[in-house]
Amino acid sequence: MDSKSCSNDVEVETQEMDTRSLSASHRGSRYLHKVGTPPKVNLVREFTARVKDTFFADDPLRLFKDQPRSRKLVLGIQAIFPIFEWGRSYNWKKFRGDLIAGLTIASLCIPQDIGYARLANLDPQYGLYSSFVPPLIYAFMGSSRDIAIGPVAVVSLLLGSMLSNEIDPSHGAEYRRLAFTATFFAGITQATLGFLRLGFLIDFLSHAAIIGFMAGAAITIALQQLKGLLGIQKFTKKTDIISVMHSVWGNVHHGWNWQTILIGVSFLSFLLFAKYIGKKNKKFFWVPAVAPLISVILSTFFVYITHAEKKGVQIVKNIEKGINPSSVDQIYFSGEYLLKGLKIGIVAGMIALTEAVAIGRTFASMKDYQLDGNKEMVALGAMNVVGSMTSCYVATGSFSRSAVNFMAGCETAVSNIVMSCVVFLTLEFITPLFKYTPNAILAAIIISAVVGLIDIPAAILVWKIDKFDFVACLGAFLGVVFSSVEIGLLIAVTISFAKILLQVTRPRTAILGKVPRTNVYRNILQYPEAAKVPEILIVRVDSAIYFSNSNYVKERILRWLMDEEEEAKATCQPTIQFLIVEMSPVTDIDTSGIHALEELHRSLEKKNIELILANPGPVVMDKLQASKFANLIGDDKIFLTVADAVSSCSPKLGEEV
Amino acid sequence: MDSKSCSNDVEVETQEMDTRSLSASHRGSRYLHKVGTPPKVNLVREFTARVKDTFFADDPLRLFKDQPRSRKLVLGIQAIFPIFEWGRSYNWKKFRGDLIAGLTIASLCIPQDIGYARLANLDPQYGLYSSFVPPLIYAFMGSSRDIAIGPVAVVSLLLGSMLSNEIDPSHGAEYRRLAFTATFFAGITQATLGFLRLGFLIDFLSHAAIIGFMAGAAITIALQQLKGLLGIQKFTKKTDIISVMHSVWGNVHHGWNWQTILIGVSFLSFLLFAKYIGKKNKKFFWVPAVAPLISVILSTFFVYITHAEKKGVQIVKNIEKGINPSSVDQIYFSGEYLLKGLKIGIVAGMIALTEAVAIGRTFASMKDYQLDGNKEMVALGAMNVVGSMTSCYVATGSFSRSAVNFMAGCETAVSNIVMSCVVFLTLEFITPLFKYTPNAILAAIIISAVVGLIDIPAAILVWKIDKFDFVACLGAFLGVVFSSVEIGLLIAVTISFAKILLQVTRPRTAILGKVPRTNVYRNILQYPEAAKVPEILIVRVDSAIYFSNSNYVKERILRWLMDEEEEAKATCQPTIQFLIVEMSPVTDIDTSGIHALEELHRSLEKKNIELILANPGPVVMDKLQASKFANLIGDDKIFLTVADAVSSCSPKLGEEV
Repeated sequence: MDSKSCSNDVEVETQEMDTRSLSASHRGSRYLHKVGTPPKVNLVREFTARVKDTFFADDPLRLFKDQPRSRKLVLGIQAIFPIFEWGRSYNWKKFRGDLIAGLTIASLCIPQDIGYARLANLDPQYGLYSSFVPPLIYAFMGSSRDIAIGPVAVVSLLLGSMLSNEIDPSHGAEYRRLAFTATFFAGITQATLGFLRLGFLIDFLSHAAIIGFMAGAAITIALQQLKGLLGIQKFTKKTDIISVMHSVWGNVHHGWNWQTILIGVSFLSFLLFAKYIGKKNKKFFWVPAVAPLISVILSTFFVYITHAEKKGVQIVKNIEKGINPSSVDQIYFSGEYLLKGLKIGIVAGMIALTEAVAIGRTFASMKDYQLDGNKEMVALGAMNVVGSMTSCYVATGSFSRSAVNFMAGCETAVSNIVMSCVVFLTLEFITPLFKYTPNAILAAIIISAVVGLIDIPAAILVWKIDKFDFVACLGAFLGVVFSSVEIGLLIAVTISFAKILLQVTRPRTAILGKVPRTNVYRNILQYPEAAKVPEILIVRVDSAIYFSNSNYVKERILRWLMDEEEEAKATCQPTIQFLIVEMSPVTDIDTSGIHALEELHRSLEKKNIELILANPGPVVMDKLQASKFANLIGDDKIFLTVADAVSSCSPKLGEEV
Repeated sequence: MDSKSCSNDVEVETQEMDTRSLSASHRGSRYLHKVGTPPKVNLVREFTARVKDTFFADDPLRLFKDQPRSRKLVLGIQAIFPIFEWGRSYNWKKFRGDLIAGLTIASLCIPQDIGYARLANLDPQYGLYSSFVPPLIYAFMGSSRDIAIGPVAVVSLLLGSMLSNEIDPSHGAEYRRLAFTATFFAGITQATLGFLRLGFLIDFLSHAAIIGFMAGAAITIALQQLKGLLGIQKFTKKTDIISVMHSVWGNVHHGWNWQTILIGVSFLSFLLFAKYIGKKNKKFFWVPAVAPLISVILSTFFVYITHAEKKGVQIVKNIEKGINPSSVDQIYFSGEYLLKGLKIGIVAGMIALTEAVAIGRTFASMKDYQLDGNKEMVALGAMNVVGSMTSCYVATGSFSRSAVNFMAGCETAVSNIVMSCVVFLTLEFITPLFKYTPNAILAAIIISAVVGLIDIPAAILVWKIDKFDFVACLGAFLGVVFSSVEIGLLIAVTISFAKILLQVTRPRTAILGKVPRTNVYRNILQYPEAAKVPEILIVRVDSAIYFSNSNYVKERILRWLMDEEEEAKATCQPTIQFLIVEMSPVTDIDTSGIHALEELHRSLEKKNIELILANPGPVVMDKLQASKFANLIGDDKIFLTVADAVSSCSPKLGEEV
């Protein structure tokens, strides 16, 4: 009985609706704004505009427009070497800031460089070499004012790990040659990405994955330092936490050296305390910056007078004196190592780039100046290519030193030149003095440096904001810690890509309802007060409709419809007569998408439901018309807003508003 | 003078604006709807819901809910073998339709099978085997009512090409074993994808790329048939157009056989004419369906009585009699061919799946029934696994035969059983009669079959709708024609992926203006009549803001702002005071996205521009609050609509409406 009366109601309703909707479409043409179709654009022009938009943040030739030739030459040189642009307004006041900042980061970089070179399984002087030539080149070509160039912990570790997979580091010369080859190709990779405007490729490593990767790398690096800190002689070559801890505990009885531990731990405490002071009060930022050099001087002096090296305290022993020798003839331009060097170079170059660009962007936004990412990449690339020919390994921007540089009041890249000069003097005159520096001090310096890479608050924020991002973060972290840096990196990239693919294959859809006392239709899950309009189902598709999601979108809409119909049947309400698809977020549609819409239209026709579109964008409108789909459903079934669409299907409901 | 007065104006305006916006935010709280925050969801439940939405089109266990155990068992069996579901309502009327359809497709498939087996470099009987077992299995497990199962041209070509890269087809037994291995793994791949609900992976091959790939494959296959059609003995093994044409013309003087050409060309004309009739009048759909069998019978009889085989007309010679022998022991489950078979199987399985699913969907939407893609994949996979153990190679749904099946009035998968029975009788009794069938006829049948795969109107439509899609289409086409099927496939997949990546890294943004006489803000490029609001810049971001595009989005917004400011300066108008970001299409945001917004906010603060958000969705709102960004810019700076936002910054402008 009950269900019968219900179905009777529906039939009556249906007839009413039909007449209503007819009159509505008549009325509609009177007062409704039509959906705009953008003016036809020339194909070539459209293509050029699209390409430009993809590759350039800004028109790179804007400056060159309408200039005489000589001026163009000057501008061209300035574009490649920004120093000639900002150099003209350089003054003593700026130099004062740069000098202080340069000296501060030099005091920080010298002990770090020596330690980082060991991470890359290279002799200490190669770290110093890499802090001499690359910063000079960068100062001429780079456009960031705050970045501090030189070897960094993570890239050193990555390079060391990948290189030693190919050649045992004990084969000194060959290993070094491969390192220079990798550095050369890292530079080529960076410059090429910048030159071809493919800089956006580094955006594929998500921020969250980088947080995890960095934290993992920091822990791996710190664990490696246990060798130096505890004075262990035989140490595993693997980097995963299990092998390392095994190695550490296995040596506990006869491998540890108490004198080394005493020196190492006391200076580590000193360094961490200095760091704490610097963090507590921004005024004392220079305390952690000079603490490493002070530790080196004190400990070296201490070992020298006590002859602790004879009691098992390992020392640096020898750092070659003099500046970078040429290494042009050492790069492998043929043979089996060419390809291996290329592979390692690409990976190391990309990671170095990611770090440098992130630093550049951060400080540029702090001081509010523009940074052209692609130009920046060319500068970094050039610097590494030149570096590879002058016995340097991959250099990039260091997070910790750039922060010190910024806080010490650097004004331009001249602070890098100052640092470079200090390193030059060190190489020429002071290296012999490092002979008695205990390795434990270098280990302590590295540990205190990489601690800053573990950003727990950031990880917590990631967890709060996006759980999927946190999985990427955790995956990268665990990959690095329990396996190796390469595996961690691979996990990070894979998860990042999976996220992108999920995004494009499974776009969100939402049922819209009318927000009371407005003409606005919104997601009923977000606005519980929003009410569904009887007999009308309003669905919003929240993504471009492409081949990768067109079927899903179609099926999802049909499923919403089925659910709605079931509900209507259960509650004895009139069934759905109109399906309005809100297209505002649908920025583009391709052939598969049009197909899906056609199939949707066909399915709806069978159910006697009318398909109505609301607010398709310019591109979509263009394609709906090109494909004749607009004709198929009728031009008068496409409306500017959902409200217009709703009032067109049921004027009575519309008037209630 | 002029510029000075301009700047004065601006200052006055600014002060006015400040007081205005203050009063607005007071007033705003009175009449504005707040942006909703969705109720907090339990983490686990949110995750489950997300996973479900990703993998299931519908709740797969909905049917099983609240059922007794015995009923669950029945339902479970029905889920795996849908035949037990629809079989219960099967009747004689339906059988009549299926019988006619089954006989029609059988007459079409027998000559095609023999020809397609040659494409895969297999003996003719293997084609027939593959039309016997797989359709039977499918009939029990599949849910499409219209698909016709068996070997198809493109998969045969692909399989033949990939297999002969590994083993020369002249090593009969080994080659066959690898074919069965590949078939086995193709089935496993299909079933696994279906079982793990990863069916959406095949959506990554765009519709446009498939059009190009199919057309290219059709031309390649047709070119291969020139060997049979012209009676050439020595023929290249490569499939690219240049090698083939070289081979054809190189044989023109002593390689062509005029008797063969006479038979081949005349029957080809007959077949194409039959196709034309069938196309012209849908009533005569059976003409092209039976034409191949008639050609085979006529030509075989003709050769038999004229003894043309002694004049150089090549004939089939021998088709083994009897049904499929077992091939379980022939599959490589170890050794070097295991991996090769696996690789080939995955590729062939995916392509076969793409074709079958596309067919299934097309006809399901024509007859308006639901098809569960993942269940379908399990059925296809099971059918190929069983096939690989009974001497079949990869079978799938055939476009041309499914269309004939549909037009002949099939009702259920029983038409496949009928076809299978006919093939069984053929194998048992009739194969010896094929001895004198000339190869030229098989070539003609294949050519006339694959002609239908070249869909020029579809390609034209793709060109009209989406130029980028057309590049994918053309790339796949040229890749197949000028290189090989594998290369074409690779190009198609690569371009498809490039499009996805471009989509997520370079989302569109638009400047909005007010559509006259409404409260609606739309893209000013689409609606030239829409007017910008003075002192307010309204930007819409048309995509989720993720790590892959967050920097781009930020920089693009700042560039819009710069352009706008330059324009304002040039035309002496007041500068921008408010930046409204319309977030409706921003369906999601991740940590990088929040970072980008923070940086944007910081840059704007430096310029004294206020950042206002309009209509963030539920997920975005949630994350804005979790990250405290909502607090940073102020909760009262987030509005339900752009109109609300605009009226909040300048109530006077709002009242003018």
